[in-house]
Amino acid sequence: MSSPATIYGIGLGPGDPELMSVKAARLIASASVIAHFRKPGRPGNARTVVDGMLAPGVIEEALEYPVTTEIALEDPAYGDALRSFYDNCVRRLLRHVAEGRDVAVLCEGDPFLYGSFMHLHSRITGRAPVVVVPGISGMSGCWTASGVPITFGDDVLTVVPATLDEATLREKLQSIDALVVMKLGRNLPKVRRALQAAGLAERAIYVERGTMAGEKVLRLADKADDEAPYFSMILVHGRGRRP
Amino acid sequence: MSSPATIYGIGLGPGDPELMSVKAARLIASASVIAHFRKPGRPGNARTVVDGMLAPGVIEEALEYPVTTEIALEDPAYGDALRSFYDNCVRRLLRHVAEGRDVAVLCEGDPFLYGSFMHLHSRITGRAPVVVVPGISGMSGCWTASGVPITFGDDVLTVVPATLDEATLREKLQSIDALVVMKLGRNLPKVRRALQAAGLAERAIYVERGTMAGEKVLRLADKADDEAPYFSMILVHGRGRRP
Repeated sequence: MSSPATIYGIGLGPGDPELMSVKAARLIASASVIAHFRKPGRPGNARTVVDGMLAPGVIEEALEYPVTTEIALEDPAYGDALRSFYDNCVRRLLRHVAEGRDVAVLCEGDPFLYGSFMHLHSRITGRAPVVVVPGISGMSGCWTASGVPITFGDDVLTVVPATLDEATLREKLQSIDALVVMKLGRNLPKVRRALQAAGLAERAIYVERGTMAGEKVLRLADKADDEAPYFSMILVHGRGRRP
Repeated sequence: MSSPATIYGIGLGPGDPELMSVKAARLIASASVIAHFRKPGRPGNARTVVDGMLAPGVIEEALEYPVTTEIALEDPAYGDALRSFYDNCVRRLLRHVAEGRDVAVLCEGDPFLYGSFMHLHSRITGRAPVVVVPGISGMSGCWTASGVPITFGDDVLTVVPATLDEATLREKLQSIDALVVMKLGRNLPKVRRALQAAGLAERAIYVERGTMAGEKVLRLADKADDEAPYFSMILVHGRGRRP
């Protein structure tokens, strides 16, 4: 791919393999090493997206998260475990670079928008060449799936992680124009209450697996349960100028 | 491409032609008709991005804006002129569909994020098949060019159009984590004042032509003039958790 060997953080887009960029497809097909994050024991969505695209003889590095939801975010052990995990990932990838092999790290969505790759990027910078290839974000996949533009005219777009505590979430949802709530998972009941408090519950659209097999789009008010997988978001579309 | 004939709103991404999606490239190369917005007398950036990709014998429809900055946004004549322009564009495109030709409308960035295509989409819906292909947003191109992730941990991302009046702009910039200011153009002096008032001026990064030839990334404080072309944005990176 290049000389000297380089680590690429490659945005795969929202899930549909055809929505990755031409550049991403080219780099993935020619990489000597493919790395991707996954939960222990799972194939990993990123790896599934590139099935059938890899070069013959490619070396694969599965980067398995040590913790995801077992330890509370506030527990110092959470940060410690993640820090040594990222340090260790970087050691594994730099070994390939030292031996002249380019490495493509597969990133769901866009690497620089709430992506795990940023924690490798900051550790690699200054130690090896590192290039980021942007991708179509998961939120863009979801608002496209919803069939309605997310912003109109002068709408302000607010993107909020559902992992915030409820009081902060309620505060951030005040006087919004257009809204995306990311990282739903088990935070859905809390998000419902915050949307209700902000008077947004009736406008909220729930999107699951946008652009992927099993895509679902429905009014949040019509969603009977509180099950939300990793690939799910809530949208509130803007109401700005529409000439 | 498909049967019956369909109008595609195709996100081209942030400017680098290799950053369009594989799907966009496939649809553009096979479309019978290519349409794109442009200012009168200009080639149009969208059209330049697809140079060399079009099918032989393709029909081209240049959709020329009647007004851009000559009439004030608040003037009712502005809305009237745009409404008849969009109505007229849709008539031109529907004629091709009626004759069995697929139409690819080229959209800079992502069609459903502050894109002109949305005004065609709402008019076409119910009258012809219409499909939107998301693209890497211009803002993603800009934060990738900046070399630093836009959000960390639980940062809220706020995307603000610089076309808002100064008082609203100042209000929206209060207590932000991560910020993107779009649609800069001649609004740059106003945006500088609002950033100053919000205590964000020192953190602001100016990005011009992100991912394109002539890309510039500099601290806003180091930008001596107030010239900002259409393809420019201001970023304030988040400061959230970094394990």
